[in-house]
Amino acid sequence: MKAHVYVTMKKTVLDPQGATIARALNSMGHPEIASVRQGKYFVIELADGTSKAEAAANLDKIALEVLSNPVIEEYRVEVLD
Amino acid sequence: MKAHVYVTMKKTVLDPQGATIARALNSMGHPEIASVRQGKYFVIELADGTSKAEAAANLDKIALEVLSNPVIEEYRVEVLD
Repeated sequence: MKAHVYVTMKKTVLDPQGATIARALNSMGHPEIASVRQGKYFVIELADGTSKAEAAANLDKIALEVLSNPVIEEYRVEVLD
Repeated sequence: MKAHVYVTMKKTVLDPQGATIARALNSMGHPEIASVRQGKYFVIELADGTSKAEAAANLDKIALEVLSNPVIEEYRVEVLD
């Protein structure tokens, strides 16, 4: 089974890296880019025999405790088949 | 309009960061994690008045030339409404 975890800065937290990318793109002839926010993206492969419910619960815990910093980041877990 | 760009290492390229996360999770009591690959994730806001086709074409160019390193990485662009 496969799962995706997306970690992004909370909307209220400044993302200087994303702002820099947006500014660079604007100056490179892409004025249509209004803003960029950068996040992390994890593709996780689970061992065979893990149930979908078990995987979702474990990954939620992993995303909260290991993959993200809950003070400034938010995450989204997506369990695929 | 909003778009997401996902950048990941090509499958043939070693991802030591992902391997380290997988090993750490295994030793933290998550033996069900078989592998982890880490990528980047960009949330891009486009100026009003950009058409969906135009956005898709521009973002494909941006993802290839700016956001990814096509030698070792692959990308996926997703234009939302």
